[in-house]
Amino acid sequence: MTTFASIASQLEGQAIELPSWAFGNSGTRFKVFATPGTPRTIQEKLADAAQVHGVTGLAPKVALHIPWDKVDDYSALREFAADLGVALGTINSNTFQDDVYKFGSLTHTDAGIRQQAIDHHFECIDIMHATGSQDLKIWLADGTNYPGQGDMRGRQDRLADSLAQIYARLGSEQRLVLEYKFFEPAFYHTDVPDWGTSYAQVAALGDKAMVCLDTGHHAPGTNIEFIVMQLLRLGKLGSFDFNSRFYADDDLIVGAADPFQLFRIMVEVVRGGGYGPDSPVAFMLDQCHNVEDKIPGQIRSVLNVQEMTARALLIDREALDAAQSAGDVLGANGILMDAFYTDVRGDLAAWREGRGLPADPMAAYAASGYQTQIAAERVGGTQSSWGA
Amino acid sequence: MTTFASIASQLEGQAIELPSWAFGNSGTRFKVFATPGTPRTIQEKLADAAQVHGVTGLAPKVALHIPWDKVDDYSALREFAADLGVALGTINSNTFQDDVYKFGSLTHTDAGIRQQAIDHHFECIDIMHATGSQDLKIWLADGTNYPGQGDMRGRQDRLADSLAQIYARLGSEQRLVLEYKFFEPAFYHTDVPDWGTSYAQVAALGDKAMVCLDTGHHAPGTNIEFIVMQLLRLGKLGSFDFNSRFYADDDLIVGAADPFQLFRIMVEVVRGGGYGPDSPVAFMLDQCHNVEDKIPGQIRSVLNVQEMTARALLIDREALDAAQSAGDVLGANGILMDAFYTDVRGDLAAWREGRGLPADPMAAYAASGYQTQIAAERVGGTQSSWGA
Amino acid sequence: MTTFASIASQLEGQAIELPSWAFGNSGTRFKVFATPGTPRTIQEKLADAAQVHGVTGLAPKVALHIPWDKVDDYSALREFAADLGVALGTINSNTFQDDVYKFGSLTHTDAGIRQQAIDHHFECIDIMHATGSQDLKIWLADGTNYPGQGDMRGRQDRLADSLAQIYARLGSEQRLVLEYKFFEPAFYHTDVPDWGTSYAQVAALGDKAMVCLDTGHHAPGTNIEFIVMQLLRLGKLGSFDFNSRFYADDDLIVGAADPFQLFRIMVEVVRGGGYGPDSPVAFMLDQCHNVEDKIPGQIRSVLNVQEMTARALLIDREALDAAQSAGDVLGANGILMDAFYTDVRGDLAAWREGRGLPADPMAAYAASGYQTQIAAERVGGTQSSWGA
Amino acid sequence: MTTFASIASQLEGQAIELPSWAFGNSGTRFKVFATPGTPRTIQEKLADAAQVHGVTGLAPKVALHIPWDKVDDYSALREFAADLGVALGTINSNTFQDDVYKFGSLTHTDAGIRQQAIDHHFECIDIMHATGSQDLKIWLADGTNYPGQGDMRGRQDRLADSLAQIYARLGSEQRLVLEYKFFEPAFYHTDVPDWGTSYAQVAALGDKAMVCLDTGHHAPGTNIEFIVMQLLRLGKLGSFDFNSRFYADDDLIVGAADPFQLFRIMVEVVRGGGYGPDSPVAFMLDQCHNVEDKIPGQIRSVLNVQEMTARALLIDREALDAAQSAGDVLGANGILMDAFYTDVRGDLAAWREGRGLPADPMAAYAASGYQTQIAAERVGGTQSSWGA
Repeated sequence: MTTFASIASQLEGQAIELPSWAFGNSGTRFKVFATPGTPRTIQEKLADAAQVHGVTGLAPKVALHIPWDKVDDYSALREFAADLGVALGTINSNTFQDDVYKFGSLTHTDAGIRQQAIDHHFECIDIMHATGSQDLKIWLADGTNYPGQGDMRGRQDRLADSLAQIYARLGSEQRLVLEYKFFEPAFYHTDVPDWGTSYAQVAALGDKAMVCLDTGHHAPGTNIEFIVMQLLRLGKLGSFDFNSRFYADDDLIVGAADPFQLFRIMVEVVRGGGYGPDSPVAFMLDQCHNVEDKIPGQIRSVLNVQEMTARALLIDREALDAAQSAGDVLGANGILMDAFYTDVRGDLAAWREGRGLPADPMAAYAASGYQTQIAAERVGGTQSSWGA
Repeated sequence: MTTFASIASQLEGQAIELPSWAFGNSGTRFKVFATPGTPRTIQEKLADAAQVHGVTGLAPKVALHIPWDKVDDYSALREFAADLGVALGTINSNTFQDDVYKFGSLTHTDAGIRQQAIDHHFECIDIMHATGSQDLKIWLADGTNYPGQGDMRGRQDRLADSLAQIYARLGSEQRLVLEYKFFEPAFYHTDVPDWGTSYAQVAALGDKAMVCLDTGHHAPGTNIEFIVMQLLRLGKLGSFDFNSRFYADDDLIVGAADPFQLFRIMVEVVRGGGYGPDSPVAFMLDQCHNVEDKIPGQIRSVLNVQEMTARALLIDREALDAAQSAGDVLGANGILMDAFYTDVRGDLAAWREGRGLPADPMAAYAASGYQTQIAAERVGGTQSSWGA
Repeated sequence: MTTFASIASQLEGQAIELPSWAFGNSGTRFKVFATPGTPRTIQEKLADAAQVHGVTGLAPKVALHIPWDKVDDYSALREFAADLGVALGTINSNTFQDDVYKFGSLTHTDAGIRQQAIDHHFECIDIMHATGSQDLKIWLADGTNYPGQGDMRGRQDRLADSLAQIYARLGSEQRLVLEYKFFEPAFYHTDVPDWGTSYAQVAALGDKAMVCLDTGHHAPGTNIEFIVMQLLRLGKLGSFDFNSRFYADDDLIVGAADPFQLFRIMVEVVRGGGYGPDSPVAFMLDQCHNVEDKIPGQIRSVLNVQEMTARALLIDREALDAAQSAGDVLGANGILMDAFYTDVRGDLAAWREGRGLPADPMAAYAASGYQTQIAAERVGGTQSSWGA
Repeated sequence: MTTFASIASQLEGQAIELPSWAFGNSGTRFKVFATPGTPRTIQEKLADAAQVHGVTGLAPKVALHIPWDKVDDYSALREFAADLGVALGTINSNTFQDDVYKFGSLTHTDAGIRQQAIDHHFECIDIMHATGSQDLKIWLADGTNYPGQGDMRGRQDRLADSLAQIYARLGSEQRLVLEYKFFEPAFYHTDVPDWGTSYAQVAALGDKAMVCLDTGHHAPGTNIEFIVMQLLRLGKLGSFDFNSRFYADDDLIVGAADPFQLFRIMVEVVRGGGYGPDSPVAFMLDQCHNVEDKIPGQIRSVLNVQEMTARALLIDREALDAAQSAGDVLGANGILMDAFYTDVRGDLAAWREGRGLPADPMAAYAASGYQTQIAAERVGGTQSSWGA
């Protein structure tokens, strides 16, 4: 097997974007539990995100959600972030919390409501210019709950038209990234339910439109790494929303539910040219820390991605190719499993220390006193959550 | 096939309990849409429920949710309901919205919190005495989100102990009904995830403990009518929570997602002695009308149950038995399908008119002006929802 | 609602292709049960298929499977079929039963084996010229059972190359139709697992390449009618393989497991222009009658498709559009359900009689004595099955 | 974390029974690929199994399948096995390959066929006396493909009666172990589809009746370790059939599809007292090596179980209890993951060598020349497979 030393340099520069909303409260339709120290503002979210980057060196960017993270002065916010050592990343639009969007947004039959949703994306593009963000990420809650409630075909056509208008507004360095989701919040049909629909839509737009793959947005049993392979092959994998799931869109810590699946995904990312400085793929977390602490939840997440990346890089590709060509099923599988079962944690700790980072980021954060500090300081105000 | 005339008398007395919370706002973790006319109080919910019963004659009881429907004087509430022509039904406990229950209720490792959850059920039993309710329905949100977070075995043992304490407090005519659910809000493990667990727990309690089957609480592909058959055979089917689903616990209108499944369930109910005056099975809806109007949503639901009951009763049981014994696969299936494909709606309309009910309850409600009236009158206050 | 009379003329000319292999024995990996009267030759299969068409008028074509249905003289076979009143339809290739294909066919790493698989398709095209068939249907068993066993990306690229070679050989009136399948016989990855992959592959080929949608080849919970809508919108729905399923690729009688799903599929077919004389969509059955009689199993199947087509045509499209635009969720759903719950069987029986067909095709076939006759006559020889 | 040294002694005596049929050919309904060296007789299967035990020390017993492994003289077979260093284990009955069982066996409506199925189990018990086997394992293919085809309730009652007759015939040291399966070969309903049904049936029989949990026999998303916990708690976990799956009952190498799930299962086994000399749980493989070599496939499997057992034993239970009680979600999860991510392979290799076993059993087998030898010697005859 390849040695850790030989792959260590490839770990340099790995970057996983953090979602601002991961630091706010989240929950289920049954209950959102509040926790002490939860940020009230985007500035406090950025401060929390900076903690994650500080102990891991893995998370230099923070994705924003509009309107949750709206501010008056985005240049000031950009500087505020820079002072903390992080940058502003992907801009996520939101057309699922206004009352007008009850029956759709970019797909709505009502021209006025549809325009409102398009305009919201124009505003997001304006913000991107101010923040220096590259990606406009669109996840739509559009869909229906009952057969017959909507005309799926008409909705798809209107979606295409809306996206074309938004795409036309993009700057030359900007991209539109369209996310797909199997179900929820709509329960009969979702307007962008699968990678095929997202691909067909972005392929019709042009080179600056890509697909976003959220690892929790698939039917039970779906082979996600196959989709990773296919989208890379088609040149259309724009970004990841990493998380994990046992059942639906559980939004658990990435790698928590099925670490072997995360490994297989990273194997295909590496295999397909999706990893490294020239990759067009943006890596991002999209998680909800409903019952666990949020900052260490994010630390654990980026470490999981890093550990699995290291394991994926450890694969002896030459031996694997040979075993595959020879029809040596157990041999080929064994080469993959060898990399997966290798405990890279010690090597990574040493590697981290060599870069001035703590060997054990979870312990370092716990020892920092930051959690106690924010719990004490952040009193009053309204804690951030999805509705904030 | 059996004629409608020959089964008409069996439709008399069919009763489907309405959940008070179906009349309040509901939604997903992404958004709860408000609608004009939504009740602010349990009294207004009862008034809405009475509308459903008024046009269908099918819904004489309303289930309460504690603490959502707490009042100072349950006797007064009972009389208020009676004046509207309905009665108070099942009492549903709630141990999922207090902050102390973040890590469990009847299963909690902390003795104090567990006692608080037990005490809540004692209070529910007290309320049952005041309302004249028969059933205490327990659905638990208890579970964990991450492997290792909790000790599943210890939790199960504590659950058994908690249930035993609650069971011991039941009056002689009262029952404890334990609901199971595959997942949500917990995403790794649920403490009562399947009928087997619910059955094992209630079997250990005694004759007054039964299982509640919510039709939306199963793994994908589960043959629900088999479970209906099995629980009836074991004498432990206490009640239904009817709704329908395409993906998870979507809580859609019963029969909306898979009408044939609803039919097959009713076939097994009839086959196993679960239908009729001597049946121990309580039929109840448990739905969320996120995007559709709530009162007509409930009307549609009870009509769907009635229509499928009629179809199930239409099966020529003698011919079916003969075909089954003869190994006549297509013949036996055909007898079942004949009943399913029979359009009973005209016969039911006539049957309804013969009883002084409107032939078309949906149209009758729409024409009644009630919706306009409540939209105009119910201004101000806080609309009911799951958190209210 | 639209009346049956007003849609009756649209039922003329409906044609559902029968698969020759449906008349042979089939089963599971556990056991294939034999039945008296099972055909031994393609000629006997055609004779059986002609029975289905004779009593229903719905099944004028029979799809062949190569090599299962290989003969020396296809012109003679074509005439033989014509004398029976049926025509030869789609040619299905088979690269899953030769030992060389253990690790793949059109995707194989070995150039020689891959060429053998391509050559097999060239042979199929030759046969198509002789039979007058329009469609070459390709379903691949290619895939792997263990992570690492194969290089998914290389396999996809080789698949593209193989398909391009086959596509180049098509005559001007011929089409290539690529089927996708979620899993089985491969258990880790399938080389064409979803509609997106099939679409990306055929889009790269050209106008004569289309997608085949087998209704049993999806992940649990997949909204199949959405895919129907999307493929029609993209102009790439080439054909259906109809069947039904509760769990995996059960290959049950179409409409048997979820009649409402079949209805919704037909609604989208009609909505998207996939039904009628100008439609590019070929309708075909792909079923396995493991425990039921095969000929009546096929009769039941085409009748189910016809009945659901009639119901789909009955929808009051104008009223539906209005309800959808008005956000009238229950109203729109109700219009759809009205059509679904309408019992069209009586009207269809009369319609059939008006065309010289038996009112009750199932009864007519049972009364014909054909089953008894073939059971008596077809003694000796080897009954057809998947391996024959 | 606990050290390997401190748990090493607990690895002594671990035993995983091998299924005789794993050494024969297997496949899907599409194709069974033959491989050189496949055994033709039970004696050759035992010889192959002895190879697995020889290099691992983990597989001292071989389960038989009746009638596949029927011989005239079971005492002779017992001695033959003993000479090879293995013993005969569980007896598996088979009521799914005789034509009479097309519509059921222990559940059949026909009293004669049902008696034949009961008698088959009596014969199995007789064989158990001759082989010295403890367990009679019953897996039933009984079920139906279409709604209405059978009366599920009547079938369940007949099953109970049949099992009672079989149970009554057991010797004092013998056990009946009832397996459940979600679906396949039946596609609408299975007569023992879930653990609840198996539990209810064996609980009605008595102390010598237990449940068999096959890890591939559950609905998508099922939390299998919960069931392990529950059955151990109820005192009814009799045995495991280990394998793994991505989709349905894929019967892949245990731990191949989801190693973390295998780990969690072993964690609950250890937690619930299911591991060690006093455990009533029999561990067995039930796999199909469709495309990989069979003997190394079995070696890989037992090693996977051993490695995951070691990891499960490494958990610092005291620290875990403390974190669980403290509501420290990330801490508790981290303790579990620490054990999972520990690479135990080096320690196990050394441990093996200390016991006179090869450090690398896979390599040792490959180097042994056995595979070449059997490929050369086993020419002619009929290779074993499910039908043999």
